[in-house]
Amino acid sequence: MEKKELVVLEEILGSNKKIAAEIRKKLEQEGILTVNFLSSPGSGKTTLLERIVEVLKPAHKLAVIEGDIETERDAERIRQKGVPAWQITTGGACHLEAKMVARILSKIPAETHLLFIENVGNLVCPASYDLGESLRCVLLSAPEGDDKPKKYPKAFLTADCLIITKADLVPLLPFSLEQAKKEALEINPRLHVFVTSALKGEGIQELVQFFLARRKELTQRHA
Amino acid sequence: MEKKELVVLEEILGSNKKIAAEIRKKLEQEGILTVNFLSSPGSGKTTLLERIVEVLKPAHKLAVIEGDIETERDAERIRQKGVPAWQITTGGACHLEAKMVARILSKIPAETHLLFIENVGNLVCPASYDLGESLRCVLLSAPEGDDKPKKYPKAFLTADCLIITKADLVPLLPFSLEQAKKEALEINPRLHVFVTSALKGEGIQELVQFFLARRKELTQRHA
Repeated sequence: MEKKELVVLEEILGSNKKIAAEIRKKLEQEGILTVNFLSSPGSGKTTLLERIVEVLKPAHKLAVIEGDIETERDAERIRQKGVPAWQITTGGACHLEAKMVARILSKIPAETHLLFIENVGNLVCPASYDLGESLRCVLLSAPEGDDKPKKYPKAFLTADCLIITKADLVPLLPFSLEQAKKEALEINPRLHVFVTSALKGEGIQELVQFFLARRKELTQRHA
Repeated sequence: MEKKELVVLEEILGSNKKIAAEIRKKLEQEGILTVNFLSSPGSGKTTLLERIVEVLKPAHKLAVIEGDIETERDAERIRQKGVPAWQITTGGACHLEAKMVARILSKIPAETHLLFIENVGNLVCPASYDLGESLRCVLLSAPEGDDKPKKYPKAFLTADCLIITKADLVPLLPFSLEQAKKEALEINPRLHVFVTSALKGEGIQELVQFFLARRKELTQRHA
């Protein structure tokens, strides 16, 4: 990268970091646990969110921000579950930034328990942008292959959770769950790992219980 | 995007375009057909390349450039097939640029027939960077879903070929081949569409014959 590019990039990231810190402070003070989901296109972020929302909705107030380059499709899918959802279409940009989330913040109901943010499908660029989340989850779908953590390390290094998705396909694929976990944990030993299948409902309860435990900690911290 | 960012981005893209035009001119004059493969991480670019290389190697001189953020893994896989391969590790950058390809150009044997470039796994950013290729192929793996073309339109808009991969999994997935093709062709009606399974060997011959026909045209044009 050339010097001029580097200077501009550092300015953007510095400004993003400040806005993200303000967002996190505001949301956590209101008792809202915010989860940022990032992954390649087609790893199953929206389908996983649909399953999570189905489990949580009866007892919890939820909100969802959907990031995409084009189309309102994902927000519509979440709204059909009866959960308020806002679509950010970046119009070409390859990641969400904190300032995009900040513009929506005033619309999030104050009594919300959990706010989910689905980033633009991209395993590279979103890893560099803190959105003010309390938890970052990286998804790796089994069809993508167990060699991805070391090829795209930053997403795994900066995440709190690794969610392996489409696990129902594992028996049909050249994919080793053990190898994927091992690679990811070598990059980031603090990762909480969940193995899920949104199609079969596998692993969703464990993930949801983890989010609820984290929200409980958060509300106790700010009580 | 802010004005300063836009100015820097335009400078980068302008300079990239010039370098790419020089690369294309040089390679095509030497009778080398260059194919740039781009897709999400884990769409099966390297495995498809392994199959293509197996078909072409007995009668054609090949060379491969592999782009990744980290690791030499993909180049090693190609070298095991007896084909010269150079790995570019971008160390964080989310796409290949023409200047990275330019640095390798002097190493490509002059009698090469086809040069394949595997971009960094990212369905967004690589679409903006011409690498001096004669043909651009976007891969869409069936597990990613048939709704991806409209969500990530630029890759489909700028490509010459759409290669649907992992087609052997279609019967197990909520994926419609017709819907995927329809969406992609609505964005770009000039796309040549190939349906492949690297695991089962499906569609590889058709794709290879297409590349060879394009190379024949190229060598006749420069005869």
